[in-house]
Amino acid sequence: MEIEIKFRVNFGEIKEKIESLGASFVREEIQKDVYFNVPLPKLLRVRIIENLKRSFLTYKEIKDLGRNEEFDELEVEVSDFDVTVEILKRLGFDEDVTVKKRRLVYQLGNVTFELNDVEGLGGFLDIEVISNDVEEAKRKIWEVAKLLGLSEKDVEPRLYQELIREAEGQGKRA
Amino acid sequence: MEIEIKFRVNFGEIKEKIESLGASFVREEIQKDVYFNVPLPKLLRVRIIENLKRSFLTYKEIKDLGRNEEFDELEVEVSDFDVTVEILKRLGFDEDVTVKKRRLVYQLGNVTFELNDVEGLGGFLDIEVISNDVEEAKRKIWEVAKLLGLSEKDVEPRLYQELIREAEGQGKRA
Repeated sequence: MEIEIKFRVNFGEIKEKIESLGASFVREEIQKDVYFNVPLPKLLRVRIIENLKRSFLTYKEIKDLGRNEEFDELEVEVSDFDVTVEILKRLGFDEDVTVKKRRLVYQLGNVTFELNDVEGLGGFLDIEVISNDVEEAKRKIWEVAKLLGLSEKDVEPRLYQELIREAEGQGKRA
Repeated sequence: MEIEIKFRVNFGEIKEKIESLGASFVREEIQKDVYFNVPLPKLLRVRIIENLKRSFLTYKEIKDLGRNEEFDELEVEVSDFDVTVEILKRLGFDEDVTVKKRRLVYQLGNVTFELNDVEGLGGFLDIEVISNDVEEAKRKIWEVAKLLGLSEKDVEPRLYQELIREAEGQGKRA
């Protein structure tokens, strides 16, 4: 199970704090995610990490819909982003939104920090633990979140595709 | 476009004839194909080539349904066979039949010979040309087929999954 809490952050400030904690920098990813219209709690995505030239097909089921912190995830690497997107379209899935972000990945023990600068949305930090012990994972996530000065008010429960969809809606209305 | 004609053959005899033609041996593949229930003319398959430890997600559209010689094919390599099958199941696709075969691949110019020993069905030769000129491709396929002593009566228009489905049905009735 993937346990993950998303916080709204100032990218530069939180980057310094993560590095001060002693977390190791793992890699930078320039991601483009195409989401498909499948009914919640299912999520279907094809991601290309443009700077690493790697692509992934990902299926998730949200286990705590609304809070969106617990995910059952299935993922495979695929040899071609565009062909994978096209296969899903031909199978009848409609493209929903595209999410683009620059991500810095840090690791501290079994905690992964995914610091994101999301195009059109700003800075977000996903703190993630892979575990079957949900309570212990959340305890661990909140322990490091507090060290970074983050609290409940900084939590963003909405999915990136929901935020993008809302932002695009506002753009259209403006 | 993938143009392919399937013939029922004696595996050992036709292997010698292909080699006599001067075709180069490319590789041996031990394949397991899981097909999913999608409505014709669509085909959806996950293949593992067990001896090469490579897996593929393949979507095809039959362009000449019934004759089954012209295919629009989209394929990506995937990092994990079982996870890919599971993603498709979770997306709502039902598993249809599994086709297992030993395949010897030969190449002669732009013609590919796929000589198959299909579990439960026997020997088949797929002669394939990738081209957008369907007529020219078929002319080429028939040119080499005749050199191998094959004729219209040896053509098997049914798909492997149809043949397996029929064979399994007969097994159940027996």
